[in-house]
Amino acid sequence: MTALSDHRTAVRPTMADVAAEAHVSVKTVSRVVNHEPGVRPDTAERVRAVIERLGFRRHDGARLMRQGRTFTIALVVEDLANPFYSQVGAAVEREARIRQHQLITASAEGSPSRERAVIEALVNRRVDGIVVVPADESASSDAVLEASRTPIVYMDRPVRGTPRDTILSDNHGGIRSAVEHLVAHGHRNIAFYGDDPAFWTARQRRDAFVATHQGLGLPSSPRVSMGPHTAGSVQETLTQWSVGSEPISAVITGNNRITLAVLLALRELRLPLSLVGFDDFELAALIDPPVTVVHQDPAAMGQKAAQQLFARLLGDESQAQTVVMPTRLIVRASGLRRAALNR
Amino acid sequence: MTALSDHRTAVRPTMADVAAEAHVSVKTVSRVVNHEPGVRPDTAERVRAVIERLGFRRHDGARLMRQGRTFTIALVVEDLANPFYSQVGAAVEREARIRQHQLITASAEGSPSRERAVIEALVNRRVDGIVVVPADESASSDAVLEASRTPIVYMDRPVRGTPRDTILSDNHGGIRSAVEHLVAHGHRNIAFYGDDPAFWTARQRRDAFVATHQGLGLPSSPRVSMGPHTAGSVQETLTQWSVGSEPISAVITGNNRITLAVLLALRELRLPLSLVGFDDFELAALIDPPVTVVHQDPAAMGQKAAQQLFARLLGDESQAQTVVMPTRLIVRASGLRRAALNR
Repeated sequence: MTALSDHRTAVRPTMADVAAEAHVSVKTVSRVVNHEPGVRPDTAERVRAVIERLGFRRHDGARLMRQGRTFTIALVVEDLANPFYSQVGAAVEREARIRQHQLITASAEGSPSRERAVIEALVNRRVDGIVVVPADESASSDAVLEASRTPIVYMDRPVRGTPRDTILSDNHGGIRSAVEHLVAHGHRNIAFYGDDPAFWTARQRRDAFVATHQGLGLPSSPRVSMGPHTAGSVQETLTQWSVGSEPISAVITGNNRITLAVLLALRELRLPLSLVGFDDFELAALIDPPVTVVHQDPAAMGQKAAQQLFARLLGDESQAQTVVMPTRLIVRASGLRRAALNR
Repeated sequence: MTALSDHRTAVRPTMADVAAEAHVSVKTVSRVVNHEPGVRPDTAERVRAVIERLGFRRHDGARLMRQGRTFTIALVVEDLANPFYSQVGAAVEREARIRQHQLITASAEGSPSRERAVIEALVNRRVDGIVVVPADESASSDAVLEASRTPIVYMDRPVRGTPRDTILSDNHGGIRSAVEHLVAHGHRNIAFYGDDPAFWTARQRRDAFVATHQGLGLPSSPRVSMGPHTAGSVQETLTQWSVGSEPISAVITGNNRITLAVLLALRELRLPLSLVGFDDFELAALIDPPVTVVHQDPAAMGQKAAQQLFARLLGDESQAQTVVMPTRLIVRASGLRRAALNR
């Protein structure tokens, strides 16, 4: 294999290179490239030959940017490898593509400072708009966005301060349906495993669990464990809550990562508990028993966020709106008492 | 909520706007922005006040592009929502981010013509380099890439023609280990479910299955079903091959999507077959019995591809190389005869 020329990293030819090679001005090259009048036919032909030979390509980006638009939007999430975000990403990318836009994806890894750096870089690159799953509620990038007038849509979690378009899931309704499902099937002692309470969604779901638990007048006090979790910490609380006078018979989880952690812990401990997970997952139907979940639709959320962003790019100046997307309970079997996991 | 000003889609202020507002030339604004000499202090102060008021931000992109670099790389895959590609995407994005580059992701949805359009748009935007999981082997975008001298790294599947850096998985070794594992556990009648033979990887894995099957001198002829599959077609062949004088006792699948389809079909048909899947998946350990898989490492492949691309961007002009990443068998239980699925 010889490919010395394939990976040349020399600066790619510019209009100036073409001009020098064709012994004309840059303006003349520009006229030829942009099919503008004022160039003698033989000169135009010579310029085109040089363009061909050097492999010069007009830089669409520069042209678009003279119009103030880059035809690029961005998506900032926590971690693209998480199935929730990868489904959001695929949906946003699709909305961008059908509108001839490109999508820059960036992971902030849950760090507000990294998120701010990422957003500043995107603004400096003049992306036309950004969909952000914010790392926290502090809106630390908002001043940058405000100054640059870059449209933004927040997703999954809101941000304090200036109202912005925000796409959320019905966290409260989702958790309520999970508790009610378990209670309807005879469960009275139910534990909730939530994510790190630094996350708005984690607190929403926890609060919904406690409120529903109290609203239904269940005898025991609600048992809640918030993240960050480790395999060890999950096993420890599960073990602890499964003994005593009021052992738990069911668990509700706050997201797909925690469902996985709880499933692994139940398998490890061989504890016969029922389960309802927040977030559907691909193989939920293949676990034994199949896992009942609260389904939120990341693809629909991503699509909605992108559509809202493009509406703003097209000139929609109506008030910022918050859209709460419905969740629904997908009943499989893991919520039933007689179908407890690892029974 | 009132936010009329938050989503203004007016063209963002340019240097020309600042110049007009400050009653100076664009060159003067440029000097102030770029901290160049030749501007009177009071003028500079006036310009900075206007910059502040209008919310003008220097366009880093334009500055970088004058240096011939955009500090952007791109990743073109089939479908970002597929866990294989989302793990690749997260790894490539991480490599880009730690080098202060941004990543544009694009899905070609398996269509060579869409892939060509996507790659042309990326080249016209002057991304510095591209990692591509090619839709086919025809290298239909290669002329565009060659002319623009955009470095490219192919991943997962090679492309015919000009040698290019290519990162592959050891498909042959992976499938061979799957067949040998099943045979070692007493299986003699094994079927292979592969993807659409239009894909190079699908043919590689099929050929590896047939070659290993013949090499081991198994009594029956190898049974092979290639995609595209439907739930119905999988159920039909599984049923057909499970009866007669030499019923199959085990199945090998060609990728994560097909593993899912076969798992669902086995559950539906309640067929007691063993299984080894190509591609590990998150909940493989939680299926009953836990699923034995050939693990290829998408994150490592994405990282390797990005590292190779950045080496080219840094001036590595050595010959194009093909790197074959190892696969490994993760033995759980589904390959054992006595632990057949749905027994």
